[in-house]
Amino acid sequence: MKKIIKNGTIVTAADTYKADILIENEKIALIGQDLTDPAAEVVDAEGNYIFPGGIDPHTHLEMPFGGTVSKDDFETGTIAAAHGGTTTVIDFCLTDKGKLLQNSIDQWHAKSKDKSVIDYSFHLMIGEMNDSVLEQLPSVIEDEGITSFKVFMAYKNVFQADDGTLFRTLEQAKKLGALVMVHAENGDVIEHLVNKALEAGQTDPIYHALTRPPEVEGEATGRAAELTGLADSQLYVVHVTCEEAVEAIAKARKKGYNVTGETCPQYLVLDQSYLEKPDFEGAKYVWSPPLREKHHQEVLWKALKTGDLQTLGSDQCSFDFKGQKDLGKEDFTKIPNGGPIIEDRVSILFSEGVKKGRISLNEFVDITSTKIAKTFGLFPQKGTISVGADADIVIFDPSVERTISVETSHMAADYNPFEGMKVTGQPVSVLSRGDFVIKNKEFVGKLGKGNYLKRSRYGELTSSKEELYQK
Amino acid sequence: MKKIIKNGTIVTAADTYKADILIENEKIALIGQDLTDPAAEVVDAEGNYIFPGGIDPHTHLEMPFGGTVSKDDFETGTIAAAHGGTTTVIDFCLTDKGKLLQNSIDQWHAKSKDKSVIDYSFHLMIGEMNDSVLEQLPSVIEDEGITSFKVFMAYKNVFQADDGTLFRTLEQAKKLGALVMVHAENGDVIEHLVNKALEAGQTDPIYHALTRPPEVEGEATGRAAELTGLADSQLYVVHVTCEEAVEAIAKARKKGYNVTGETCPQYLVLDQSYLEKPDFEGAKYVWSPPLREKHHQEVLWKALKTGDLQTLGSDQCSFDFKGQKDLGKEDFTKIPNGGPIIEDRVSILFSEGVKKGRISLNEFVDITSTKIAKTFGLFPQKGTISVGADADIVIFDPSVERTISVETSHMAADYNPFEGMKVTGQPVSVLSRGDFVIKNKEFVGKLGKGNYLKRSRYGELTSSKEELYQK
Amino acid sequence: MKKIIKNGTIVTAADTYKADILIENEKIALIGQDLTDPAAEVVDAEGNYIFPGGIDPHTHLEMPFGGTVSKDDFETGTIAAAHGGTTTVIDFCLTDKGKLLQNSIDQWHAKSKDKSVIDYSFHLMIGEMNDSVLEQLPSVIEDEGITSFKVFMAYKNVFQADDGTLFRTLEQAKKLGALVMVHAENGDVIEHLVNKALEAGQTDPIYHALTRPPEVEGEATGRAAELTGLADSQLYVVHVTCEEAVEAIAKARKKGYNVTGETCPQYLVLDQSYLEKPDFEGAKYVWSPPLREKHHQEVLWKALKTGDLQTLGSDQCSFDFKGQKDLGKEDFTKIPNGGPIIEDRVSILFSEGVKKGRISLNEFVDITSTKIAKTFGLFPQKGTISVGADADIVIFDPSVERTISVETSHMAADYNPFEGMKVTGQPVSVLSRGDFVIKNKEFVGKLGKGNYLKRSRYGELTSSKEELYQK
Amino acid sequence: MKKIIKNGTIVTAADTYKADILIENEKIALIGQDLTDPAAEVVDAEGNYIFPGGIDPHTHLEMPFGGTVSKDDFETGTIAAAHGGTTTVIDFCLTDKGKLLQNSIDQWHAKSKDKSVIDYSFHLMIGEMNDSVLEQLPSVIEDEGITSFKVFMAYKNVFQADDGTLFRTLEQAKKLGALVMVHAENGDVIEHLVNKALEAGQTDPIYHALTRPPEVEGEATGRAAELTGLADSQLYVVHVTCEEAVEAIAKARKKGYNVTGETCPQYLVLDQSYLEKPDFEGAKYVWSPPLREKHHQEVLWKALKTGDLQTLGSDQCSFDFKGQKDLGKEDFTKIPNGGPIIEDRVSILFSEGVKKGRISLNEFVDITSTKIAKTFGLFPQKGTISVGADADIVIFDPSVERTISVETSHMAADYNPFEGMKVTGQPVSVLSRGDFVIKNKEFVGKLGKGNYLKRSRYGELTSSKEELYQK
Repeated sequence: MKKIIKNGTIVTAADTYKADILIENEKIALIGQDLTDPAAEVVDAEGNYIFPGGIDPHTHLEMPFGGTVSKDDFETGTIAAAHGGTTTVIDFCLTDKGKLLQNSIDQWHAKSKDKSVIDYSFHLMIGEMNDSVLEQLPSVIEDEGITSFKVFMAYKNVFQADDGTLFRTLEQAKKLGALVMVHAENGDVIEHLVNKALEAGQTDPIYHALTRPPEVEGEATGRAAELTGLADSQLYVVHVTCEEAVEAIAKARKKGYNVTGETCPQYLVLDQSYLEKPDFEGAKYVWSPPLREKHHQEVLWKALKTGDLQTLGSDQCSFDFKGQKDLGKEDFTKIPNGGPIIEDRVSILFSEGVKKGRISLNEFVDITSTKIAKTFGLFPQKGTISVGADADIVIFDPSVERTISVETSHMAADYNPFEGMKVTGQPVSVLSRGDFVIKNKEFVGKLGKGNYLKRSRYGELTSSKEELYQK
Repeated sequence: MKKIIKNGTIVTAADTYKADILIENEKIALIGQDLTDPAAEVVDAEGNYIFPGGIDPHTHLEMPFGGTVSKDDFETGTIAAAHGGTTTVIDFCLTDKGKLLQNSIDQWHAKSKDKSVIDYSFHLMIGEMNDSVLEQLPSVIEDEGITSFKVFMAYKNVFQADDGTLFRTLEQAKKLGALVMVHAENGDVIEHLVNKALEAGQTDPIYHALTRPPEVEGEATGRAAELTGLADSQLYVVHVTCEEAVEAIAKARKKGYNVTGETCPQYLVLDQSYLEKPDFEGAKYVWSPPLREKHHQEVLWKALKTGDLQTLGSDQCSFDFKGQKDLGKEDFTKIPNGGPIIEDRVSILFSEGVKKGRISLNEFVDITSTKIAKTFGLFPQKGTISVGADADIVIFDPSVERTISVETSHMAADYNPFEGMKVTGQPVSVLSRGDFVIKNKEFVGKLGKGNYLKRSRYGELTSSKEELYQK
Repeated sequence: MKKIIKNGTIVTAADTYKADILIENEKIALIGQDLTDPAAEVVDAEGNYIFPGGIDPHTHLEMPFGGTVSKDDFETGTIAAAHGGTTTVIDFCLTDKGKLLQNSIDQWHAKSKDKSVIDYSFHLMIGEMNDSVLEQLPSVIEDEGITSFKVFMAYKNVFQADDGTLFRTLEQAKKLGALVMVHAENGDVIEHLVNKALEAGQTDPIYHALTRPPEVEGEATGRAAELTGLADSQLYVVHVTCEEAVEAIAKARKKGYNVTGETCPQYLVLDQSYLEKPDFEGAKYVWSPPLREKHHQEVLWKALKTGDLQTLGSDQCSFDFKGQKDLGKEDFTKIPNGGPIIEDRVSILFSEGVKKGRISLNEFVDITSTKIAKTFGLFPQKGTISVGADADIVIFDPSVERTISVETSHMAADYNPFEGMKVTGQPVSVLSRGDFVIKNKEFVGKLGKGNYLKRSRYGELTSSKEELYQK
Repeated sequence: MKKIIKNGTIVTAADTYKADILIENEKIALIGQDLTDPAAEVVDAEGNYIFPGGIDPHTHLEMPFGGTVSKDDFETGTIAAAHGGTTTVIDFCLTDKGKLLQNSIDQWHAKSKDKSVIDYSFHLMIGEMNDSVLEQLPSVIEDEGITSFKVFMAYKNVFQADDGTLFRTLEQAKKLGALVMVHAENGDVIEHLVNKALEAGQTDPIYHALTRPPEVEGEATGRAAELTGLADSQLYVVHVTCEEAVEAIAKARKKGYNVTGETCPQYLVLDQSYLEKPDFEGAKYVWSPPLREKHHQEVLWKALKTGDLQTLGSDQCSFDFKGQKDLGKEDFTKIPNGGPIIEDRVSILFSEGVKKGRISLNEFVDITSTKIAKTFGLFPQKGTISVGADADIVIFDPSVERTISVETSHMAADYNPFEGMKVTGQPVSVLSRGDFVIKNKEFVGKLGKGNYLKRSRYGELTSSKEELYQK
């Protein structure tokens, strides 16, 4: 069934113009003015923007953490994502040292296959680097199309890898055409600061932030960037929160190192004082890295503008306040890390970024979709509105004013960290490969309709090496 | 008459995809796959890229300088531009202190009107700032659509304005919605160094470079950037050549100042040693700022990649070697400043930038066209391939290998500074508002067919303030 | 008559130790423990520090400015200086364009000869650079021993020199062995901002600060530093007030440029809000560059610590509040620029710097005396406590607590900008070439006893070139 | 027995002047001109400089390493040091994880007690941080006067401590008044690079350098500096070799972190190409960090000048070429790390630094002696020429020209890495606490005459907090 989206203003990472879009066979088939086709369903988008579907490069759906499991799974998580204007998620597949990587990947397929309402893909965590892992990596890339590896520099004795592992992963990534992602915090120092706090009886949520100061993030980011330069490899720093880390990335980029950085909406609009809310409410804002003092927000916004940061992820990892977050009532280290963010990622950047004049409309699309598709090997199938691309489309009303609330959100957790925040703009309808997932703000999609996406090697589609485009 | 461009790979600042383009009434009417229209002329672009027409933001056609006049006028200059894949030029309208600005603008209209084969526009030089000039500026913007003003910090006693004039121009630009452009070199210091050289009998072309060292460019660039920040205005630094100037721009951008920078192909591929060629041949490479030592080239390339520099101009200002350049045979200060560059601007960036992996295809389009259109108020009419835009289109063969030579170039001057340079890629056909100007590498356009373009106010169309897009 | 100073703690730029000092024939003759000499007057310094006499490199005594003359002359000014622990001043000799330099120098000799109670020397202002000035400079250095030249980048149409003059002065300084000093503010921009303020009816003292923002100082400082690097010469930036200027100096030093910077006590402890005092009291704090926002103070202190700033001057230029400052009651531009600082310079740095742990005792001596002597060609005759040096000595009680006030100060002006400030430490007795000028906090010196000091060429005595020391 | 050193030019970190020195009871008793004392031995120093004895803060005498022991012990090592103008050494006391610190300290006392001909002290290596170590530290400081702790970030599985240990050491150092020293290289990455090289059959000495590139030093230096800032503690980076590390230190200092850096003569004058000498001669230049490419030398010199680096150590750790270095003939990792440097440290800095105009005489004294004494709690007993200080004195002939050679050196190893290098200047006679150790270039000292020095707490004597000086 064909569709024509009429009268909207199409926005891509480069362009803003009025035109109609004809969708056929899940793809964008035609772009022009005054398109007609008797066989097509006509969708009127007058007064709305037409954005390429958002891509969330950083989610943790149904993820085990600290003895519990994140609340949103691939069902509620992707439904909420779609409501928020996101049509692709890339979730982190955790692995266990000493076990086959394929086992973990199979688990992740099992969780997602029959649930996801939008297309999805996986990153793979690398916890160790040895002969066995080296042997397995080529098939992870070839057979599974997983072309990004995550290394943790924090979570000592849980996820943390040592610098040797990080460096070898960078070397392998270069060789195999993959991208290395790091969680950049110095886990050794954090462990000590945490122990010291606990010994001093400092158990409240605010100590989560105070035991992971910006310096440990800045240090680790600089370290990862230097090792990337040394290995002549490529790095993506997830959830950058502070000036120290932004400066480390900017310095690396100036030297010509291939380092990119992601931030998240929570770091752009919330701050460390939230962890001091009374009645243990601070626990709602516990994730890692923690929220920072307010002055860091301006640095992050400037970095999105200058390009020292390039993308926006949600780091979605939701837990109920009652029953999950309160595991840490007596000890902040027991509070499960994370929050429900996936649904509001796109709207917050539009409202706080575009509407407030901090970034342009085109930059907004680049940051929430296009650059992510290019970075993670999904472009141009995903991430833009161009003829031949998947018809992942968001019809977005830029004028509606609304207040974010758990009451109206579709995530499973029992609170929303942005509760009460006023935003301008909202997705009205969302299409995934040409079919409505959201129609007039109602979910009309189908569980399991989302496809697993094998991704291209790093740089294969978007490399600056022009020859690659000829393929 | 309609046209369909078939089978090409369309490249914009964001996208790369295969599709056909239907052109009607000077505009891009439709983009899709397998387009057909019996009434349309079909142009086969198989194996070629389809770029938006290049925009050259920096030309001096038929410009008086040092007692002579630049060789290429709006006829030969725009024909050569079109051969090179450029479909819009913005020329600098010089003014005389104490005379009405409109007089100068009228002169420029007279030079261009019946000659230009492609669309064109003007920047306006500001040499003084007083009550009379203040009164005239609004109509320059309103009636002439000239929204960019050029201030010279060099050419003492000729074009040079003092810092007060520069600062007041920045203030007016902010108030009126214009962009200030600077030629950033310290004219006072240069005057002294030049006098000292002449007194020492140093008259050869190389002394042109040695009396305008990078420090005077870096200093002036930093000065202009600081004044811009102070005035909370907007600045465009033309022809950036060296590390010192790039650092000044990068520092300003990091502070959040609205400063952008342009470089030119000659600075990317030629170096100071060219001025030492024997038999006065160095004079062919005399322009200001001068060519620099080779190590600066890498800095300029990196700055184009990171975005500290954003655009590429030609600074076209050609003079014959015989009869013009040799005015300075006994005294390098008498050598007319400038060279024939307009035709090779796009090809050199493609060959040295994209083909050598320094920038991506999309960045190439942004640097030679899209960003320029956005910066100078021409977007989205110019600068992209999207439905509704002017059909200014370049069909570009990325595989042809050729050697640049005055023998095959279309500029009027009697030499080519890139003589003998091998490049890959060449425009095959070029359309201006839907009509061929170049067809299969032959000029088929018409004198005077180019339109004068009134431009929008700075930021009016591309501002980060989302409301502006609603107009 | 010999003297022995007993039981004090001697402090130099390097050392801190207890010992006695024997003074003979105006010089330090012997340093040892338990010195005795029946012919010597014994001065007990138990519990006190023995510092080398302070050197104030930046005074304007009896200087004409804006239709009036600075209140403290060489009599009151040097008496106050001595009370404050300063035993040498270097005053700025102003010159007039088109007149002989020697005329101005003779005027300055006339003002100082019979009045100064301590040794003194002159810097020379350079307002223009032409054949006549070039001819005169060698004798200024040879005959007058004036080896430092001051260039103003501000005070448009009064003192301001253009960049060509600054650059030529740098070149001459290098050739002749002199040091160039700059007042670094962009006078062109200031002139415009001032005119704009006046046109808007903004006449209060605070507009003095708001029309000379830190950006114009940072810009001019960077400009002067770049020209110094280009000329391979030496520069001393007077009265640095802000982060922008400190960064410009630090950047230059990192590149290996020979650039040093001075700050003044007023910038370390007072801030811009003082100019907003009601009842025109803000006028007491009007000088150029102006006081800055408070956060700049921390930057200046850190720069003194790291060595990006090296010296402390007073910029003494006092005017009465009644009768002089109030010339500007209706128009801030008519307020004479400057304040009475000379007496409190040393004590403020001791109290706020050493006592508060920001700098060490040795650094304090270096900043107020030793480095200044080395920079301006007076070392080791002045600036240290070593055998053979002039016996310019301060016996300083580090424990006394007192409050600065016009009531107790010895400067001629009718107010003290540090009124009410509590400081720890005070000079008890001060010797100039072995004779008491201050004894037990009372003035016991003699008018005209101070000698005019001819200074060595720049680097002649302290150059890093070891051979120079052999002379 | 008293001595008078006559007619020399005394040089301290601040002063340069001609005077005589009277020595009595091991101390400097009197400084003056034309001193006489019938009971005193007169030493004529006409034409010579009088420097405070050099202090070498970084030696490894008789140290076990890689299955062998460094060749120079406290006998030959301190004799050679004295010949070279060094009168105090601070040696690194290695410790074993799990064993009592006092055991190691006792071993070091045993090695040195009856051998050292000059005064000496110890730093203590910290390999782990746990309750037992925490308990032992106070007595190390109180009883042994060891107030500096060394942490290794390299030598994986041998000396390397993790970041938690480093951070806790910084915290303890702050609490107890000690200084933390780091060997800053990323040991994890080096281990991997070394293994990769060996697997590729790359066994020659040059691979020692290629597997420890500057990036791993820069990264680790930045990491240690960040942790220092976070702990608000104090750090001393030993043997800084490269631009990357200098920049990390400069950045930390600019932020106000208490970070200082040492370099060594080998890094100032030798470069990486030495490791490529044929016939395994490259092994003579194998130490860690390795020699760097030549362009780093200029960066180190500038950093000594601007104060981003403050001190010069030798990192003396000598091995014979025959019999020791050749343990690594088949495998560069088996080459014992280190070289014979202790004797030439002072002369090289004088000749290459002062004589070539890179630093001043006073800076030379500061870098080789005064600053080291201040940093390590030995001032003013050591490190200067002032009344009351130990009479550790070097009479130095600045004019003699000579060639460094193993033939004329006094170190035990069978080669000299500076072989053939021409230097200007040489110690003629050297006194330790008033007694000649070297007299007219001959050793006249006595084994075991050197005293063990207990050192003050960090900052106790030289703190910027003025109160400390009152004690």
